[in-house]
Amino acid sequence: MSYNFRFTPVIFDSIFHRKELLKPYNLAGKLQFQDYIDHTILKPTATVLDIKNLCKEAVDYNFYAVCVNGCFVEIAKKELQNSKVKLAAVIGFPLGAMSTKAKVSEAIECVASGADEIDMVINIGQLKSGDSNFVRSEIKQIKKAIGDTVLKVIIETCFLTTGEKKEATKLTMEAGADFVKTSTGFGTGGATLEDVQLMKSIVGDTVKIKASGGVRDKETALEYIKLGVSRIGTSSGIAIVSTK
Amino acid sequence: MSYNFRFTPVIFDSIFHRKELLKPYNLAGKLQFQDYIDHTILKPTATVLDIKNLCKEAVDYNFYAVCVNGCFVEIAKKELQNSKVKLAAVIGFPLGAMSTKAKVSEAIECVASGADEIDMVINIGQLKSGDSNFVRSEIKQIKKAIGDTVLKVIIETCFLTTGEKKEATKLTMEAGADFVKTSTGFGTGGATLEDVQLMKSIVGDTVKIKASGGVRDKETALEYIKLGVSRIGTSSGIAIVSTK
Repeated sequence: MSYNFRFTPVIFDSIFHRKELLKPYNLAGKLQFQDYIDHTILKPTATVLDIKNLCKEAVDYNFYAVCVNGCFVEIAKKELQNSKVKLAAVIGFPLGAMSTKAKVSEAIECVASGADEIDMVINIGQLKSGDSNFVRSEIKQIKKAIGDTVLKVIIETCFLTTGEKKEATKLTMEAGADFVKTSTGFGTGGATLEDVQLMKSIVGDTVKIKASGGVRDKETALEYIKLGVSRIGTSSGIAIVSTK
Repeated sequence: MSYNFRFTPVIFDSIFHRKELLKPYNLAGKLQFQDYIDHTILKPTATVLDIKNLCKEAVDYNFYAVCVNGCFVEIAKKELQNSKVKLAAVIGFPLGAMSTKAKVSEAIECVASGADEIDMVINIGQLKSGDSNFVRSEIKQIKKAIGDTVLKVIIETCFLTTGEKKEATKLTMEAGADFVKTSTGFGTGGATLEDVQLMKSIVGDTVKIKASGGVRDKETALEYIKLGVSRIGTSSGIAIVSTK
């Protein structure tokens, strides 16, 4: 495999013909397509070799980060040493139904083992029980525990009503997280353009957005970038950046 | 709803006509159908009210235990006070891909919050990577951390080859766990009679077996009990015990 695609702002504009929609943080400076990709393997059957290959691909293709389960953080950290690729670990994944204490402990341990970013799942049941304080407080506690480490908050849109999506996005913003993220990839659906538009209408430029779950080709990825996402979580990163 | 079904050894024998298959620990003394049931809600969208109702049903129907996610252990414990119903909490659920440290912390915290039993998921990826020591050691560490608390080990049969099912069952036995359990209910399949037979052929009477995932009616539940399971994890407990 060779990586010979470079995505430049000039090409970008010619594809979209909609320059006005492109927010500065999407294409600022020399951002290229691979800078949006969290190269991801989260399936429970992934082996040590799968994770090593994921890391090698991420280095080869200059992806922004890899995203793995907690048990593989140490292995991935070692594979990524001497590279610029960041390491993201998922927390309370994918149900979000661990206790807050357990999520906080897991986050601290992943950071201690080398994670640069934490992708946590909100407590969906408490959101649906109407306990916004619980959800906000949990995010806050995890953010406080990991300090400057980037925190992405997965709201798992597929299980939420429109009102719940709005509320979860608002709570993520209020809690001081760095990203709001659509999906785990293990629910009944992944990212949709409509959901990302809704999230963007709430957070503006105060919180970044990660679209994840079902983003498998360049055309779809472009649509999300056009809407203002800063990161795309996908296991199809190579296909996305390799398509001419 | 009223609960008027009582399952006695006499009825049991007349249904099965296969008394010789019934192991002593299945029908010893006055064990009845409800004594096999872990009344379970693990979906991420379950609300506080859902958990309270689950506990109320478990008390009303005299189920052996309820099984919930970690975030609901404290609530369930309160609901079950002054009852004989046990409380089981899931750990590293459902992917089993958290770090060992995080699983141990989560287990300790669930026990501290009132869990009587812990249902953990093995590290499937490490099993598939051939690292039996990792899998066995993780189970051992959790068992050591929770002491006399019952430990059930979910091997998630749907993702395993026959060889891996045998190995995971053997490792569970070697690690000193109390139960080997088939499934999370979140994989591509649940319990099967064949898998339980295979597990039973390995553990004999040294480790108990919990069948879970897709057990929804009395006929199926009876088949599993006939094979020697000691517990059935299901969200259909009421239907199972209410069917004449």
